[in-house]
Amino acid sequence: MMSIGNPVKVSKAAYIRPIDFKNGRVEMAHGGGGRMMMQLIDTLFLTAFDNNILRQMNDQACFSVPAGRMVMSTDSHVVSPLFFPGGDIGSLSVHGTLNDVAMSGARPLYLSASFILEEGFPLADLKRIVESMAKAAQHAGVSIITGDTKVVEQGKGDGIFITTTGVGIVPEHLQISAERAQPGDKILVSGTLGDHGIAILSLRENLTFHTTIQSDTAALHELVACMIEAVPTIHVLRDPTRGGLATTLNEIARQSGVGMMVYENKLPIHEQVRAACEFLGFDPLYIANEGKLVAICPAAAAETLLQAMQAHPLGSKAAIIGEVIEDSHHFVQMETSFGGQRVVDWLSGEQLPRIC
Amino acid sequence: MMSIGNPVKVSKAAYIRPIDFKNGRVEMAHGGGGRMMMQLIDTLFLTAFDNNILRQMNDQACFSVPAGRMVMSTDSHVVSPLFFPGGDIGSLSVHGTLNDVAMSGARPLYLSASFILEEGFPLADLKRIVESMAKAAQHAGVSIITGDTKVVEQGKGDGIFITTTGVGIVPEHLQISAERAQPGDKILVSGTLGDHGIAILSLRENLTFHTTIQSDTAALHELVACMIEAVPTIHVLRDPTRGGLATTLNEIARQSGVGMMVYENKLPIHEQVRAACEFLGFDPLYIANEGKLVAICPAAAAETLLQAMQAHPLGSKAAIIGEVIEDSHHFVQMETSFGGQRVVDWLSGEQLPRIC
Repeated sequence: MMSIGNPVKVSKAAYIRPIDFKNGRVEMAHGGGGRMMMQLIDTLFLTAFDNNILRQMNDQACFSVPAGRMVMSTDSHVVSPLFFPGGDIGSLSVHGTLNDVAMSGARPLYLSASFILEEGFPLADLKRIVESMAKAAQHAGVSIITGDTKVVEQGKGDGIFITTTGVGIVPEHLQISAERAQPGDKILVSGTLGDHGIAILSLRENLTFHTTIQSDTAALHELVACMIEAVPTIHVLRDPTRGGLATTLNEIARQSGVGMMVYENKLPIHEQVRAACEFLGFDPLYIANEGKLVAICPAAAAETLLQAMQAHPLGSKAAIIGEVIEDSHHFVQMETSFGGQRVVDWLSGEQLPRIC
Repeated sequence: MMSIGNPVKVSKAAYIRPIDFKNGRVEMAHGGGGRMMMQLIDTLFLTAFDNNILRQMNDQACFSVPAGRMVMSTDSHVVSPLFFPGGDIGSLSVHGTLNDVAMSGARPLYLSASFILEEGFPLADLKRIVESMAKAAQHAGVSIITGDTKVVEQGKGDGIFITTTGVGIVPEHLQISAERAQPGDKILVSGTLGDHGIAILSLRENLTFHTTIQSDTAALHELVACMIEAVPTIHVLRDPTRGGLATTLNEIARQSGVGMMVYENKLPIHEQVRAACEFLGFDPLYIANEGKLVAICPAAAAETLLQAMQAHPLGSKAAIIGEVIEDSHHFVQMETSFGGQRVVDWLSGEQLPRIC
């Protein structure tokens, strides 16, 4: 038998040293279900994410909901590197899932967060990431109400992976879904394309540009709330993350059974992102965004929607970039700046691994 | 620019070969957001998990809820090895989260599933695991309604990690929570202890026993439904997973501010588990279970509860194992078979890494 039973009562404090968040590292026992895991949860997660539901400290979190439509979304985050200009895996894991919830028009309510840590990962980095998550959640007005922590042996993970799941409530009158795009609808984006992907890539490639490109990682649900107030008849919302705008438009075209025509000269792209793409050989249409959305709405409402977007800080560079057309092949086409046309196809292989 | 734009319309089918689920392996592009990821989702996940909500194919899943109390729970699964007697990481990832939802008394409704795959992981194993998840979910009567797939480079993961999140509805009259244990309450377990942990461990240590010990992995919500129908005044339910019964009882004692007395000779333990523990030097009280629960209820209702549990196949070996006592130190104590007493302390270090 292991020496885990004790014949006499002893102070529990005797077993445990304070967690060293400066120089300490993740140990296997931090995921073992015992005293060290409890200490990590108490000292780090409960402190950073503190809220009444999390404090229930059951293996599930309980909350009240009104009758109606609820949405649920989940994303695992494996971004590399963990820290990048404009954010880190912590803020990204909050924004990414909140945005997926918000793209139904829903108001996000709660998040769960599950951590897979690699043995040896610096506790200082873990603390920084957890505090970044807490700050992102607080800023977005949502609570992280339940979670899990697992630890894998060194070499069996990559520092930290974070899976978040979000739930939210959809206002009754909305019908926003990727199969609702109709020929004649206008296509809008909320701002510049490719910032997140290029921010990550510039770190990986050790590139230095004149000005550092920042990730656009941000929570979009308040922008969405402004948009649906202005135009409740929005047909489609989607955030162009992995695979970029090109992939998102192709997904919508497939699901709605339509074609699309996009105008290259209408696409908002930072000059630095454009330059980096040319230098690195990438097409900005395929580069991931983490704080941008695509909206599709009836043509008659497009200008109203554009103005509502531009009035919000996260939509100040919004633009109408194209329109939905009839096409039995469901192709996304682009009218280029030179007046030609090309098909904007699905991404075939792998462009930017571990971008989110 | 990459050759991702095409000047002429071509058949999309021309790009893609069928997925080789016999000899193929996970490639980085399976997580890249493009055509190969879409193909994997279509061919594998949508086919295995098929249901109307999942088929919405938005980045979030939408469903109707009645007004009331909802619970949410999440767990990352990193069990090693992936396949073990009685189950695999797929069935475990369904049962683990369903059980956490059910321990509030809730009826589980929906699950999300997020996959972190390692490049090079055999697609045949992935398929086997996904089909096992689908079977476990179907058997439990819940739907997997949304998900995510990420791929990390070879050496940055360990085959497959699965994070599931579950939601469920709590019947109105129940008040089941880990801070509700009261002195005088009886403590019950639903069956034999340590089966899952020993099943995993016997594989790792390459042990062969006379009879193979099977993991007890199972969905407990139907057992719970029978229990709350018989005894709606149950105070606490919890499944003793990582850290085993000892850890679970210590958690409840801490949260309720009580002590506990457990009788060693009342603990249901398979003879083979007992033998394996003696051989390996483990205490079965600290070994993980994946299809067992601890229940705490008023003494007057304990016999009724026991009978309700024993009437269900997953509770046939249920037993009353102890009682809640007053103790300002919140110790869990055990009266041993030899008539002595010892403190059943928290697990201090790491006993069985990656048990779930």
